[in-house]
Amino acid sequence: VSINRNKLKFNGWGWNGQHYDFGNHKDTFLNYLEQSLDTKIPKTLQLAKAFSEINLPKSRLSKTDLSQLEELLPNDGLTTDDYQRLYHSYGKSLPDILRFRNGDVSNPPDAVLYPRSEEQVQKVLALAAKEKWAVVPFGGGSSVVGGVETIDPDGRPVLTLDTTFMNRMLNLDIESRSATFEAGIYGPDLEKCLEPYGLSLGHYPQSFEFSTLGGWVAARSSGQQSNHYGDITDMLISGNLVSPEGVLSSWNGPYSAGGPDTNHLVAGSEGTLGVITQSTVQVHPIPESHAINVVLFPDFETGTAALRDILGEGLKMSYLRLSDEDETATYLSMGGNHWYQDLGLGALSIVGYGRNRCIMLVGTEGAPKKVEHDIACALKICKKQKGLNLGRSASKNWHRDRFLHPYMRDDLLDYGIATETHETAVSWSKLSTVRQKAKQAVRQTVAEQGNKCIVMSHLSHSYTSGTCIYFIFMYPLNQADPIGQWKPIKQAICESISKVDGAVSHHHGVGLDHKAWLTQEKGVLALDAIRSVKNRLDPAGIMNPGKLLP
Amino acid sequence: VSINRNKLKFNGWGWNGQHYDFGNHKDTFLNYLEQSLDTKIPKTLQLAKAFSEINLPKSRLSKTDLSQLEELLPNDGLTTDDYQRLYHSYGKSLPDILRFRNGDVSNPPDAVLYPRSEEQVQKVLALAAKEKWAVVPFGGGSSVVGGVETIDPDGRPVLTLDTTFMNRMLNLDIESRSATFEAGIYGPDLEKCLEPYGLSLGHYPQSFEFSTLGGWVAARSSGQQSNHYGDITDMLISGNLVSPEGVLSSWNGPYSAGGPDTNHLVAGSEGTLGVITQSTVQVHPIPESHAINVVLFPDFETGTAALRDILGEGLKMSYLRLSDEDETATYLSMGGNHWYQDLGLGALSIVGYGRNRCIMLVGTEGAPKKVEHDIACALKICKKQKGLNLGRSASKNWHRDRFLHPYMRDDLLDYGIATETHETAVSWSKLSTVRQKAKQAVRQTVAEQGNKCIVMSHLSHSYTSGTCIYFIFMYPLNQADPIGQWKPIKQAICESISKVDGAVSHHHGVGLDHKAWLTQEKGVLALDAIRSVKNRLDPAGIMNPGKLLP
Repeated sequence: VSINRNKLKFNGWGWNGQHYDFGNHKDTFLNYLEQSLDTKIPKTLQLAKAFSEINLPKSRLSKTDLSQLEELLPNDGLTTDDYQRLYHSYGKSLPDILRFRNGDVSNPPDAVLYPRSEEQVQKVLALAAKEKWAVVPFGGGSSVVGGVETIDPDGRPVLTLDTTFMNRMLNLDIESRSATFEAGIYGPDLEKCLEPYGLSLGHYPQSFEFSTLGGWVAARSSGQQSNHYGDITDMLISGNLVSPEGVLSSWNGPYSAGGPDTNHLVAGSEGTLGVITQSTVQVHPIPESHAINVVLFPDFETGTAALRDILGEGLKMSYLRLSDEDETATYLSMGGNHWYQDLGLGALSIVGYGRNRCIMLVGTEGAPKKVEHDIACALKICKKQKGLNLGRSASKNWHRDRFLHPYMRDDLLDYGIATETHETAVSWSKLSTVRQKAKQAVRQTVAEQGNKCIVMSHLSHSYTSGTCIYFIFMYPLNQADPIGQWKPIKQAICESISKVDGAVSHHHGVGLDHKAWLTQEKGVLALDAIRSVKNRLDPAGIMNPGKLLP
Repeated sequence: VSINRNKLKFNGWGWNGQHYDFGNHKDTFLNYLEQSLDTKIPKTLQLAKAFSEINLPKSRLSKTDLSQLEELLPNDGLTTDDYQRLYHSYGKSLPDILRFRNGDVSNPPDAVLYPRSEEQVQKVLALAAKEKWAVVPFGGGSSVVGGVETIDPDGRPVLTLDTTFMNRMLNLDIESRSATFEAGIYGPDLEKCLEPYGLSLGHYPQSFEFSTLGGWVAARSSGQQSNHYGDITDMLISGNLVSPEGVLSSWNGPYSAGGPDTNHLVAGSEGTLGVITQSTVQVHPIPESHAINVVLFPDFETGTAALRDILGEGLKMSYLRLSDEDETATYLSMGGNHWYQDLGLGALSIVGYGRNRCIMLVGTEGAPKKVEHDIACALKICKKQKGLNLGRSASKNWHRDRFLHPYMRDDLLDYGIATETHETAVSWSKLSTVRQKAKQAVRQTVAEQGNKCIVMSHLSHSYTSGTCIYFIFMYPLNQADPIGQWKPIKQAICESISKVDGAVSHHHGVGLDHKAWLTQEKGVLALDAIRSVKNRLDPAGIMNPGKLLP
């Protein structure tokens, strides 16, 4: 069963009514923000507009159009309900949320489709191609790059195709440890299908509860444990993509030298080639145990050195998450219910872990003996870099709350504070340059706007050849023109990273927000090659128009 | 420095004058073949035609054509020398060798080009596109699927573009453990570049000495240690492909969510999109030690069960090579200098390791302690499946000779015995069916031709979800029509595997010989998608025409 859209915030993260739990240290944290951002938190909360306060333009589809669609999607597979249309207008990026909160929704979908089978998807796309309706595939809708926004540069009617009614496990090949799912299945439901067999996929992006397998593949997702289990492209064995010109279906097996691997045309296609309807993925036994230690380093450089040595040793850790000095300081300021509360770091500043100190999570999972062995090896490596093992108790709260952090953004917006994230990937040899340039670009742009900001970063996913740098930054919101304020900051960080060859995105994707920088990363000819595939699969250009390709 | 083509056999494997060393057990082995194949080895050797006995058609290029090319390729970058043209006519498949030996060479290249830079490749391809000359990229020329055969279905002149003068290391990023090479570098030269830095790529296909980095990428190669280091696509970070329409160049970093990964358009393109001119690959420290144990199992099923349990345990073994009962028996018959000599298996047949017994190599590499630990764990798992540890001494000869086995095929042809190989990959759940069907298809077809054969198989590369099955089969050669004899056998094994969803190829590629079965594996739409990329990069269709795409 899918999640009823009425139970979810249309204009924020997750469940209706759910808030971030600041515990009893909320005031301390707000004071920290006021001081760091040199701002005054307004006395009255800056609340978002309610559904009832937002006027949506009418659907442009005629009665005939709708009855054609209804015929293909019987039993409530089609809706023009206003809450549904509003809900599917944007994804979950900061500018999406800002526009939702201000009621700035001028291009909602003209209808929302909930197909129940691959066959229905085929029929709907054929009709849409014939009628020249744009189609935006929508899974959990958690895109933070404008990937599900319902615009069409050519001004055609736009249908959102919500895949979440296609959420069954279709096959389980226990011998080959692979499972085939319909692509609209949410993370928790997917794990629930596997659990009775003692199996797990182990893909935990922060959006886990509200994103789907198809979305993960479409945007080349990574999870919190990708260091151990690989990114979604490593887990992907095969799958089906329904395009307006037919079904692209890949071979179900471990490795083939039968020409270019078309799984890699589908992965990263972000809905522009068609709708991912099913995927076969590698699964593994549910690990018997897991453990995460918290380690304190004197600075980011020692932490990075330890992280790389752990990788170099071939230890298969699930978590190697290194916060930089700004992130460590901010988290420490949060106290309260936050997982850093237990660290008692105050005293440590006097013995060589001062203002540049950095926290790293070092964890893994598997058989208890192996977990203990690998963590012991990792901690030994950390120690060589002056990494102080602070034990495991503090990491328990982090693990418990690891999907809850996105709620904080909404609550801080009520206080007039914007929180934005951006991630990239770089070779190790470029880490220092890219991190510096990106942080500087944000600071400078916010300064030019007359504000102060906090710019944090952490290394979330690491590889032999490089790492993902994840930036989080906070600044006082300009209520009069929040999008006009946001845009130059976004452009500045993208531009600064692109100039020094960082990836357009490590795991969020391209969508609308990053496409201007894709040519620099891929080159004109590679983009043309992808375009030529699109022209073959979607000659009418109805699939997620305006996204991905610049 | 590249290998002088005059030092290499044009009509067989490797160095001129090098033979397979049967030791003093040659007669025993030949007797075994006579009995198993129910044939008589001819008294006079069936020797191949010499270079001087073969008449080549003249080059179809005019003096003007040649001088145009010469201008782009100064200093001996162009040749129409007959040995060079002969050498580049075919690859190293059985039908290639059979045709070479019979002097059946009707379509040699009209010229052989040795560009020295990416820029020269660009200029040559631009000229070829203008003049409508077909271009066959050629690295080591070790293709066993017809990948470098110089034919053009449209009858245009054909140029072979030999990349082996482009063989430098261009960059070494020690921090990111990545190295950039020109793509024409041979395996041993590539390792020699890395060795002074204590680094290694660790990619050892059986063709290692006579194949190039570019060829590995073009055909999605696997190496003997791919269980540990991954297939070439796992090692590939980025690279350049020069197409007639320009350079396709991929992003140099660990992972990007910036749309479809175009490395996967290049990998597996087999020269049909352009010439791979450089690749950046992941490298690792040279392992301190390695060890390979030989384990004897009662049968293939127990061996497979052990192999899968070792994988399931997450042990990163370099070698998990399981020979089936027919391969084990044949190797045992070879005695002499062969690595099985030391096993002393005669006595074991009385204690439960009879005619179905199977040998598995279980090995790994790394820090000595880790090697011993992992092998001990693996042997413990083997023991549960009645796997008898025969120690390490026998594996030493195997390791020493691991690149020499291809020489045997040529020597056996002198005795009128054909040796052919074929590989596929399958999910674990299909292993038994595919293996049975394939072996049966070969046996039946050879029987219909009035002959007997030996059909061996082994598991060479394994994955969580499946494995590569590598078949070797031997049959008495029909000297009057060796190609007419070979073709139905090849078709039978391809057809039988395709019917039960085995891969067209695990690591040899598609070329000419497998393309008829590619539609079954990839589907019409996927092939059309690849074709649309080809039309964009190579609108004149000059790149390796007739290969890969059916």
